[in-house]
Amino acid sequence: MAAPTAGVAAKDELVGEGAGASAARAPAAEAATTRTAQAIFLISIAGGEKERLILISWQLLLLLLGVVHRPEEGFIGCGNALPFVTMDFVYGPGKNHLFVPGPVNIPEPVIRAMNRNNEDYRSPAIPALTKTLLEDVKKIFKTTSGTPFLIPTTGTASSIHPSACTTAPVPHQLPSNNQFLDQFSLLWIDQQQRLNFRVDVIESEWGRGADLDALASKLEADRSHTIKAVCIVHNETATGVTNDLAAVRKLLDGYRHPALVLVDGVSSICAIDFRMDEWGVDVALTGSQKALSMPTGMGIVCASPKAMEAAKTAKSVRVFFDWNDYLKFYKLGTFWPYTPSIQLLYGLRTALDLLFEEGLDNVIARHSRLGKATRLAVEAWGLKNCTQREDWFSDTVTAVVVPPYINSADVVKRAWTRYNLSLGLGLNKVAGKVFRIGHLGNLNELQLLGCLSGVEMVLRDVGYPVKLGSGVAAAAAHLRNTTPMITSRI
Amino acid sequence: MAAPTAGVAAKDELVGEGAGASAARAPAAEAATTRTAQAIFLISIAGGEKERLILISWQLLLLLLGVVHRPEEGFIGCGNALPFVTMDFVYGPGKNHLFVPGPVNIPEPVIRAMNRNNEDYRSPAIPALTKTLLEDVKKIFKTTSGTPFLIPTTGTASSIHPSACTTAPVPHQLPSNNQFLDQFSLLWIDQQQRLNFRVDVIESEWGRGADLDALASKLEADRSHTIKAVCIVHNETATGVTNDLAAVRKLLDGYRHPALVLVDGVSSICAIDFRMDEWGVDVALTGSQKALSMPTGMGIVCASPKAMEAAKTAKSVRVFFDWNDYLKFYKLGTFWPYTPSIQLLYGLRTALDLLFEEGLDNVIARHSRLGKATRLAVEAWGLKNCTQREDWFSDTVTAVVVPPYINSADVVKRAWTRYNLSLGLGLNKVAGKVFRIGHLGNLNELQLLGCLSGVEMVLRDVGYPVKLGSGVAAAAAHLRNTTPMITSRI
Amino acid sequence: MAAPTAGVAAKDELVGEGAGASAARAPAAEAATTRTAQAIFLISIAGGEKERLILISWQLLLLLLGVVHRPEEGFIGCGNALPFVTMDFVYGPGKNHLFVPGPVNIPEPVIRAMNRNNEDYRSPAIPALTKTLLEDVKKIFKTTSGTPFLIPTTGTASSIHPSACTTAPVPHQLPSNNQFLDQFSLLWIDQQQRLNFRVDVIESEWGRGADLDALASKLEADRSHTIKAVCIVHNETATGVTNDLAAVRKLLDGYRHPALVLVDGVSSICAIDFRMDEWGVDVALTGSQKALSMPTGMGIVCASPKAMEAAKTAKSVRVFFDWNDYLKFYKLGTFWPYTPSIQLLYGLRTALDLLFEEGLDNVIARHSRLGKATRLAVEAWGLKNCTQREDWFSDTVTAVVVPPYINSADVVKRAWTRYNLSLGLGLNKVAGKVFRIGHLGNLNELQLLGCLSGVEMVLRDVGYPVKLGSGVAAAAAHLRNTTPMITSRI
Amino acid sequence: MAAPTAGVAAKDELVGEGAGASAARAPAAEAATTRTAQAIFLISIAGGEKERLILISWQLLLLLLGVVHRPEEGFIGCGNALPFVTMDFVYGPGKNHLFVPGPVNIPEPVIRAMNRNNEDYRSPAIPALTKTLLEDVKKIFKTTSGTPFLIPTTGTASSIHPSACTTAPVPHQLPSNNQFLDQFSLLWIDQQQRLNFRVDVIESEWGRGADLDALASKLEADRSHTIKAVCIVHNETATGVTNDLAAVRKLLDGYRHPALVLVDGVSSICAIDFRMDEWGVDVALTGSQKALSMPTGMGIVCASPKAMEAAKTAKSVRVFFDWNDYLKFYKLGTFWPYTPSIQLLYGLRTALDLLFEEGLDNVIARHSRLGKATRLAVEAWGLKNCTQREDWFSDTVTAVVVPPYINSADVVKRAWTRYNLSLGLGLNKVAGKVFRIGHLGNLNELQLLGCLSGVEMVLRDVGYPVKLGSGVAAAAAHLRNTTPMITSRI
Repeated sequence: MAAPTAGVAAKDELVGEGAGASAARAPAAEAATTRTAQAIFLISIAGGEKERLILISWQLLLLLLGVVHRPEEGFIGCGNALPFVTMDFVYGPGKNHLFVPGPVNIPEPVIRAMNRNNEDYRSPAIPALTKTLLEDVKKIFKTTSGTPFLIPTTGTASSIHPSACTTAPVPHQLPSNNQFLDQFSLLWIDQQQRLNFRVDVIESEWGRGADLDALASKLEADRSHTIKAVCIVHNETATGVTNDLAAVRKLLDGYRHPALVLVDGVSSICAIDFRMDEWGVDVALTGSQKALSMPTGMGIVCASPKAMEAAKTAKSVRVFFDWNDYLKFYKLGTFWPYTPSIQLLYGLRTALDLLFEEGLDNVIARHSRLGKATRLAVEAWGLKNCTQREDWFSDTVTAVVVPPYINSADVVKRAWTRYNLSLGLGLNKVAGKVFRIGHLGNLNELQLLGCLSGVEMVLRDVGYPVKLGSGVAAAAAHLRNTTPMITSRI
Repeated sequence: MAAPTAGVAAKDELVGEGAGASAARAPAAEAATTRTAQAIFLISIAGGEKERLILISWQLLLLLLGVVHRPEEGFIGCGNALPFVTMDFVYGPGKNHLFVPGPVNIPEPVIRAMNRNNEDYRSPAIPALTKTLLEDVKKIFKTTSGTPFLIPTTGTASSIHPSACTTAPVPHQLPSNNQFLDQFSLLWIDQQQRLNFRVDVIESEWGRGADLDALASKLEADRSHTIKAVCIVHNETATGVTNDLAAVRKLLDGYRHPALVLVDGVSSICAIDFRMDEWGVDVALTGSQKALSMPTGMGIVCASPKAMEAAKTAKSVRVFFDWNDYLKFYKLGTFWPYTPSIQLLYGLRTALDLLFEEGLDNVIARHSRLGKATRLAVEAWGLKNCTQREDWFSDTVTAVVVPPYINSADVVKRAWTRYNLSLGLGLNKVAGKVFRIGHLGNLNELQLLGCLSGVEMVLRDVGYPVKLGSGVAAAAAHLRNTTPMITSRI
Repeated sequence: MAAPTAGVAAKDELVGEGAGASAARAPAAEAATTRTAQAIFLISIAGGEKERLILISWQLLLLLLGVVHRPEEGFIGCGNALPFVTMDFVYGPGKNHLFVPGPVNIPEPVIRAMNRNNEDYRSPAIPALTKTLLEDVKKIFKTTSGTPFLIPTTGTASSIHPSACTTAPVPHQLPSNNQFLDQFSLLWIDQQQRLNFRVDVIESEWGRGADLDALASKLEADRSHTIKAVCIVHNETATGVTNDLAAVRKLLDGYRHPALVLVDGVSSICAIDFRMDEWGVDVALTGSQKALSMPTGMGIVCASPKAMEAAKTAKSVRVFFDWNDYLKFYKLGTFWPYTPSIQLLYGLRTALDLLFEEGLDNVIARHSRLGKATRLAVEAWGLKNCTQREDWFSDTVTAVVVPPYINSADVVKRAWTRYNLSLGLGLNKVAGKVFRIGHLGNLNELQLLGCLSGVEMVLRDVGYPVKLGSGVAAAAAHLRNTTPMITSRI
Repeated sequence: MAAPTAGVAAKDELVGEGAGASAARAPAAEAATTRTAQAIFLISIAGGEKERLILISWQLLLLLLGVVHRPEEGFIGCGNALPFVTMDFVYGPGKNHLFVPGPVNIPEPVIRAMNRNNEDYRSPAIPALTKTLLEDVKKIFKTTSGTPFLIPTTGTASSIHPSACTTAPVPHQLPSNNQFLDQFSLLWIDQQQRLNFRVDVIESEWGRGADLDALASKLEADRSHTIKAVCIVHNETATGVTNDLAAVRKLLDGYRHPALVLVDGVSSICAIDFRMDEWGVDVALTGSQKALSMPTGMGIVCASPKAMEAAKTAKSVRVFFDWNDYLKFYKLGTFWPYTPSIQLLYGLRTALDLLFEEGLDNVIARHSRLGKATRLAVEAWGLKNCTQREDWFSDTVTAVVVPPYINSADVVKRAWTRYNLSLGLGLNKVAGKVFRIGHLGNLNELQLLGCLSGVEMVLRDVGYPVKLGSGVAAAAAHLRNTTPMITSRI
C-alpha cells in the first residue's frame, strides 16, 4: 500500500466500515419493502389446488417485460431503476380550454416566476419584494389611502376579514345583495352568522342584482344607525350579476348613513371597473386565482382608513384573520406574521407587472369586449342569459340558461369528455338549468372564440339545434370592431 | 377586386374598421402612460452651461424613486437589490396561438419533464433512459428492423444523414420530388450538392406532388443502376403537399431497382401515416419540434438494414454525422458519442408516452380530421389551397392562396400584431401569395377553431370580404362528426 | 474572550481576514462597473435656465442606446419591444444553501409537478387525485383510524384547528409545553386565548422539554376532568427541543384522564418518529413547507375518532376552520369546500411518492443521522446546543448558542451576505444568542456538510476561533458510518 | 322540444351524430389496446389445466386495488383515470451534487427562462432577442471585432467549424496540443482528419501542456507557410491542463507566421481568462453546457476578421457548418438559417445576464479560487494532481490521481451510489487512474466544500486512508480569505 504523506487517517479511524455498511443496508432493505408495498402490483397467481396472491415488485415485472435496461458494459449496474411515467390523470391531447369562472388560466410568465425553490422569508429579499407588492396591489383597488393585506389562504377564507376585522358580533350587517338566490352571497351570509353577527338579508331573485329600493327603505328606517355595515358581492359568480356599487354609495350618502361598505370583489377586481376610494368602499377583497390569473392560495384584502379605525375597537373573535398581527410586522418592515408562499409572492409580482404592462384600464376594456362577445353569441344561439337585466350583465362570467329538456350538467360533462373544454356547472338553485362560461383573467379573443365554437358543438351533441358558427360569427363581429392592436407589436 | 364565390360578407358587414381601430387605439394610449409611470426611469438633471452625460445605476435610481426598500429594523440592509422585471419581449395578453408548421405547441407534461437541472450523462440513469427511447422511437417509424439515431441538432442538420451516411459522393441521387418548387426539397438538394453528390432533380410545379411518371422514366432508363438513392420529402412544409411513398416503392419494385429510398419525414412522421418497413424506406428522419411537439434540438433518424449495410462502405465526408460513432457506443451500452441534452431526453420520453397514451393511429386520425376541417374552412372562405390535387392534401399544414390584391405577409403580420395568432409566411416562390396554417402536433379541435376564427377576422382586416363564422361552421360540422370521446374521461 | 475547548484554531490561522476582505472587494468593485455598463441608464439632461424633470420610457432609452433591434428587412417592425430582464432580487452565484427550519428545499420532482396551469377543481380529475392524497397522508401520521384534512393555508392558521374544532371556549386547555420559553408554543397559546379558551400553561425554561412532572401534578389534581385537552408542540422549532409524546400518553393513561391530546407536529411529522394511533394523539397537524418539502400553503390536519366525536358538539366559533364543511364534501365525493390550489395537490402527490419511494422509516433515519452529525459538529466547534438535555435533542433543527461576545444575528447576516447560506435567526428570548441550523426535509449528507463548512467560515468571520474542518470532520465520521447506499442505484 | 328562435340548424345538419359517434369510438378502442400494450402489467395467471398469461390494464388493476376513485355522486365517471406516477429513474433524496466537468449545474433563473412553450422564430421577437445575444456573446470572448455564431448543436459538432470554415482540406493543420495524451484533442484531430486535413500533431504526455518548444521548431522550419492553422485546446477537460494561449500568439508573432489560431475553448471560456482580440485568436468556440451553465444544445463560435476572410475562399466540404448560411440571414436581419431552440435563446439571454450581473472578471476570479481550493484539498489528502506543472493547472477541472491499489472508477461509482455525488470518470489513457472534479459554471464555495467532504468519505469507502475534514479545511482556509461579499446583499 502506498504511504500517503498528508491528511491520512489514523488506523483506528478506519474502523466501522463493516458496521456502517451493515447498518446502512438494514434501512435499505426496509426501503425495498416499503416500495414494494407502495408501488406495485400484484398479481394473482394460480395453479394447483388454490389461488395464491403474490407480490411482485415493479422492478421485477419490468425486468420480465424487458422494459428495464440492464447495461452490459456500463460501469455501474442499475437493475432496479424505477420506471419514468409521466401520464396525467385523464389526459387528453392539446390544451385544456379552461372557461370556469375561476381558477383561470395562468399566463406563462407567472408560471415561470413561480417555478422556484423555497427561500428564507426572513432574509431582506422577501420584505423588499413584499413592499413593492403592497404598494402595487393598491392600484388594482384604485385606492391611495387603503391598507392592503396579502392573506395566505383562499378567497373564501379571506372573505371572513371584512366583517371579522371591523365589527363586533352583535351589531348587524346588512348584505344588500341578491340573497337566497346566489351561491356566494349565501356563503358569505353563513360565515357572518357563524361569527354571531346579526345579518339582515335583503333578498332578490337569482339572476337579479341587489334590490336597491329595499336597501333604501332599510337605511331610511335605521335612524339610530344600528346597521354597522352594508355587505355586497360586486359580481355574483354563480349567476353573472354585477351590482352597482356607485349606487350603493350614493344611497348611503343620501341618508348620511355611516355604515361601512364591505365588498366581495373576488370575481370582479382587476376585470370589472372597481374604484375603492371614489365609491367609498371600506373593505374589499379578491383572490389570486380569479382575474389576477394566479394559482389559488392568496387572498388580497384592502381596508379604508375608516375600516382601519373601526378595526381598533371591533370585538369579534379573530385569530388568523386579525389585521393587527399584520400591522405589527408592517411596522417592523418584515411584513409577515405568517410564513408566506415564496412562489405566490413572485407570482403576484409578475401578475401585477403583466397587468400594468397591458394597462389596468385596457384589461377592463378587454373583459368588457369578451363579455359582450359572449352575450352576443348566447343571443345568436337563441338562448337566454341567467342575468335578467342588461345593466347587471357581468363581464367576467355568463350564466347561460338551457332549454328545459336539457340538463346543463350534460353540457359541462360533454364539453370536458369530448372537447377538453372546462365550463362551469350551475350551482344550487340553478343546478341543471344553467352552465357558465367564465371569461376572466389572462385571456384573449381567439381563446374565447375557440370556447364558443366548442359550446356550439356541445349544444348540438346534447340535442339543442344550434346553427354551428352562429355564435362565433356574432362574437367575432364585435371583437373585430373593438380589439386593439397589441401595443408592443405595432 | 376578385369576386369571391362563397362565404362572402355583405358590404355593410365590412363597415366599422375605422371606428374599431380608433376605439382600439385609445386604450392603447392609456396603457403607454400606465407603463411609463410604472417601468421607467429617469433622469438626471443637468444644468449650468453645457450638457453632461452621467450614469446612474438602477439601484440609485430606484432608491431615489422610493421603489427600493430600506428596511428600518430588518437585520440586514438590502440597499442595492436589483429590480425584478419579468416582462417578455412583445407581450400580449392570453395565450399565443401558435399555428406555424413548426415549431409547434409543447404539451404541458413535456414542458414539465424538461424543467430540470443537468445530469451526468455517463451515469447509468441516462443509458437506461436512452435505451427505452431507442426502442420506442422505432414505433413512430413503424419499423421493427430499423436502427434509430437521436441526433443532437435540428432537423435541417439531420437531413444530412440519409445521403452522407449511406452513399459516396460520386453516385448520383434522384430526388423524385416536387423540385424547384418547394423550399425544403431545395434545401435538401443544396445540401447534397455541397456534399458533392450528383443530384438529378425531377422538377414539378409548386403545389404539385412528385412527378411519378418522370420517376418511372428515369428508373426504367437506369438499367445499370447508377442511381443509388431516391430522395423524397414526404410532406412539403412550404406548400402542404404530401407525396405517396407507397407508390414510389411500387415503382422501384416494378423496375426491380435497388436504389435506396431516403425520406425527409420532418413534417409528417407522428402525424401522417408513415410505414417504414411496409414501404421499404431505407432512411427516414424527423425533428423534435414538429409532430413530436418538443422544443427544437433533436433530429431523429432511422435506418433500414439495407441502409446500415450501405453505410459500411459509403465514402462521403462524415464527421459529426457518422452512424459508426453511434454504433460504437450502442455496443458499449452507453449510447452517446456526444453529450446529449438531458432535458430533451426526458422530454422525448414524455412526448412518446403521450403519443402512445393517445395511440399513434388515433394521433394520425386526429391530424386527418384537423387537416380536413381546415380545408373545409378554406373552401368556405372562397379561397384556394396551394396544393393542386386532393390526393396531395397535407394533414399537417395548409397553404392558403390569397387573392392577388392582398399580400399574404400582411395576413401574417396582422394576425400577430392584433390577435396574438402566429401563422406561417409564404416562402420563396409563394412569398406574398400564400399564408400557411400549421395544424400538427399536440393540438385539439377547439384550438384549431379558435385559429380559424382568427384567420377570418384577419382576412376582413386586410380587406378580403369573408363572412365571419363561415369557415368555423364548415370546420366544426366536420369535427363534430368525427371527434372521438377522450378515452380516459368516458 | 471565552476559551473554547475543542476545535479551536491556532492564532496564526486567523490572520488573513483583512487581506481577504480587501482582496474580495476589489473584484466586487469591478463587478459594479461591469453592471453599470450593462444594466443601466443614464440620462443626461440638459440645462438652460432651470432644472427639468423628464420621463423617458425604457423603450426610448434602449433605442437611444442601440439595444433595441429595429430590423431593417424583417416583415414587421418591433420598435417598442420591452427589455427582457431576468435578474432576481439579491442574486448571488450558485445555489442558495437553505438551512432555515422551514420553508425547506423543494426537490426537483415536486417543483416539476407544480409547474402547471390551473384546472377546474370540480372536474372528476381533482376528486380522484384528492382521494389518493387523503388515503396516503394518513401514512405520514401513522394512523389508520384518523380522518385527514388538507387545509388551504399555512401551518400557523392550521394550528387553530385542534382546539377550535374539538372543544368549546370555556373548558380549559393544558399546553403541557415548554411555555414562555419557546416561540411556537407561545403563538399557539395566544391563538387559543383569543378563541376564549382558558389556557393553563405549564412553563419551562427555553431549551428544556415539557415539564412532565408538572403535567402529572395537574392531571392528578384534576379529578373532575375539567381539563379538556393537553396541547403539546412535538418539536419546538425555535429551540430544537423534541418532546416525548409517548410519555404524555402514558401519564394520561396512568391517571385515566380523558383529555384530548392535541399535537403541533409542524416541524416533526415526516422527519421525526410520530405515531398517532399508537400514542393516542387526537389531533395532529403539519405544514407543507416543512418536512414534506413543498411550498408553503397547505396545512395537513389529522383527527382521531375521539376528536371527530368531540367535534360534533364543540361550540367554539368556527368559520373557515370547520371540519363539518369538509365532511359534507367528503360524503359527496367532491372533497373540497374551498377552492384548493391545483398546484399544491399535484405537489403533495409527488412529495408523498418521494417519501414512500425512500421509505418513511428511512426518511426518519436520515433525519436522525443528519441531526446527530450536526450536533457532533457543534460539539467539535466547542459551542453549546440550546437544548439542555440529550433526550430532547431535535433531529430537524439545532439551535447553536454563540459566545456572549458574538451577536448571533451577525452569524446569520454574514452567512447570507458572503456565502449564500441561509441560517435561522434566534427568535424572541434567544434572539442574538442562538442561530439555528434547519436540517429537515429533502436533504442529503453532502448538502449538510456544505452548510457546516459554511458555518465554520462564518464563525471565523465573526470572530470565533473555530478550527476550519473540525465540525465537518466530526459530522462526516458519523455520516460515513451510517449513510445507506441509495437503493435504486445499487 | 322548445322552438329556438335564432341560430338554429336545419334538420339535415343534425344528421351524422350516430355515424360520427361510432366512427369516433373505433379509434378509441384501438387506443385502449395500445395503452394496454404499452403501459401495463399484468398479470393474472390462471389455473385449471394450463397456465395462461393475460394482460390486465392498469386501470383494472387499480380499480381492483381500490386506488382509482369512482365518485359516487360526482357528475361524471372517471373510471379509467391513469395513475399519476412521478418517480424518476434512480431517485435519491436531496440534491444531486453535480461535479462532472460538464454538463454543469443550471442556475434557477436559467431553468425558469427556458420553461416555456415554443414560439414562431420568424416573428420579430426572436430576431430582436437574437440581436442582443449576438452582441453580448462577443463579450465572453473579449472581442469587439469578432463575428459570433450560435450553432444549434453540441460543442463537439461545433468544433468542426474552426477548420471546416476557414481552410481547405489539403493545407495542413498544426494542433500544437498535448496530443496522444488527451481525449478532447484526440477527438478534434480525428474530426480534422476525417475532413481530409493533413494534421501534424505535436505530441505531449497526458497531464502536460502543449509543447511550445516543438511548436517553435515547427514554425521556424515552415518558411513557406504551408501550415495554415495552429489548433489548440485551451483547457483539456480530460486532464485538467490549461494551455498558455498568449505564449502561442507570441511564438507566431516571433516567427511572423500567418497561420490562423483555432481554439477549442469549450471548458475554458466564461471561466478561465480568455482574450480573443488581445491574443489574436482567429476562431474560438464554447458549448452551452459548460461555463455558461445551460443545457447542452448550443455551440457558440466566434471568428476574427482574418478568419472571416479566410472563410470566403476555404474549400472544405461544408453543409450544416457553413458561416455563409448565417451571414445571409444576418444581412436580412432574421439571423437564423436553421430553426433555433426558442428555449435555449431565452436561456442564453438569462445566462449572459447572470454573468454580467456578477461581472465576467468576478466569475473568472470565482473559478480561480474554487480551482485553487480544490487543488489544496487534493494536496491535503496526499494525492497527486494529474496535471504535472503548476502553470498548467486548470481552474475548471481537477483530475485527481488515485493510488495504484484503487480503481478510480470505483470512486466515481461509490460517490454516485452512496452520496448522490457525480464525479467525472478518467477517460482513455487515464481510465481507472484518475477521477475528475469539475468546478465550473454557476457554482459557489459551499457547493464545492460539500463535494470535497463527499470525496473524502468516498476515498475512505474505497480504502484510501484520508483524514476526514483535511481537504475541506485546506480548501476552506483559502476560500475564507478570498471570497468576496455578494455585491447585491451588502
